[in-house]
Amino acid sequence: MRNILLEICYDGSLYHGWQVQKNAVSVQQVLQDALEKLLCERPDVKGCSRTDSGVHANSYFVSFKTDKGIKTENVLTGLNTYLPKSIAVKSCREVAEDFHPRYSAVSKEYIYKLYNGRIRDPFFNNYAFHYRYPVNAEYLNSEAKAFLGTHDFKGFCSARSDVGDTVRTVKRFDVFREGDMVFFRVEADGFLYNMVRIMVGTLLFVNEGKIKSGELAEIISGGERKRAGKTAAPQGLYLNRVNYE
Amino acid sequence: MRNILLEICYDGSLYHGWQVQKNAVSVQQVLQDALEKLLCERPDVKGCSRTDSGVHANSYFVSFKTDKGIKTENVLTGLNTYLPKSIAVKSCREVAEDFHPRYSAVSKEYIYKLYNGRIRDPFFNNYAFHYRYPVNAEYLNSEAKAFLGTHDFKGFCSARSDVGDTVRTVKRFDVFREGDMVFFRVEADGFLYNMVRIMVGTLLFVNEGKIKSGELAEIISGGERKRAGKTAAPQGLYLNRVNYE
Repeated sequence: MRNILLEICYDGSLYHGWQVQKNAVSVQQVLQDALEKLLCERPDVKGCSRTDSGVHANSYFVSFKTDKGIKTENVLTGLNTYLPKSIAVKSCREVAEDFHPRYSAVSKEYIYKLYNGRIRDPFFNNYAFHYRYPVNAEYLNSEAKAFLGTHDFKGFCSARSDVGDTVRTVKRFDVFREGDMVFFRVEADGFLYNMVRIMVGTLLFVNEGKIKSGELAEIISGGERKRAGKTAAPQGLYLNRVNYE
Repeated sequence: MRNILLEICYDGSLYHGWQVQKNAVSVQQVLQDALEKLLCERPDVKGCSRTDSGVHANSYFVSFKTDKGIKTENVLTGLNTYLPKSIAVKSCREVAEDFHPRYSAVSKEYIYKLYNGRIRDPFFNNYAFHYRYPVNAEYLNSEAKAFLGTHDFKGFCSARSDVGDTVRTVKRFDVFREGDMVFFRVEADGFLYNMVRIMVGTLLFVNEGKIKSGELAEIISGGERKRAGKTAAPQGLYLNRVNYE
């Protein structure tokens, strides 16, 4: 069977996350519907990660298997015709049969956008989190380095998660400002459920002085969810990049 | 009576333009509803321009008269509480009684955003016009200078318009690219109905070679709507700035 890999991007504000579920529209379902129209069969699609309701993707990878002989360029064009405008296929190529968008990934990068203007910006309602309290991005960038390296992140994971191994390696964590927008960019070998949003929420506690300078390392090693900050709102989060070998 | 001036911005994709109309939601109506909640009276509001359905505003001025003693800072805060998230009040101040947001304006600046990537970007669906054919922004910037100066723009005006005087002075017209986004920035002492969108559509004819280099000046002086280009899609257009004395 051919194994076809798609790179897509989507505006998550219109979807209840990636994964198919009852009574709600997911990106996976809409993509399968478009594939069925194109191929006259309904292949199972495998995604590179679960994303929550309202979370966006600048770059998300999906694979499916088929025996149809359609050219990859025609898969791209055809899917972009059948998909709604809120989802686009950016590229399409054939990969090895054992390639898996999730398990073959070496690391992923998320970006969190926080709009720090005093007055809300109507154009960012669904695309950034509006946080009025002034953000000291340089200070947060310095404190965030405590996340770097291999740690047990069980304190930075939703209670609803039941994953076994909570050890992850964070390769990069940068906080920077461009005008009124503050960006949190984090790369890791993998992420726990809600991990980025809890990391951002915890850094906002650091910003507000609820967590003191240097205290973050101890909160990480302590492993208690209640000592970390709130889970930041979903509309600021973007899966930005997935790295493969 | 006090004359209060508001600077607002709005995501036009959710509204049928500025002006109140039957059977459709307008920015003006929503703003009057919010003012009524705040002031317990329903003042008539005067806008700085009519904008079409789907057109956005980064900066739009509105005035209303009242005898209420409410502080301008509280008008700003209160309206931002009552308005939907798609509209925001950026500033509020008291102005002279004869100040009119439209007639006191010296010039206005519009920006038109054209997304020139090969594949659509889901985040720009309602916020830019997707045009796939490669745009030569430097060439269009050079050709667009034909619009500068005082001309009778009757050929760059919707047939639905019945305005008397169609002479306008264009002070600035720049076309430039940032990545895959091409910007058209135009400033004039006033604009006819659909004027910016027809100017942009005409420049796209220039881009496609349907209008030759140097031919634009003659199309302007000819004054025939049919020789100009198509009216470019509304979602790319932003009222960006209004200049007062």
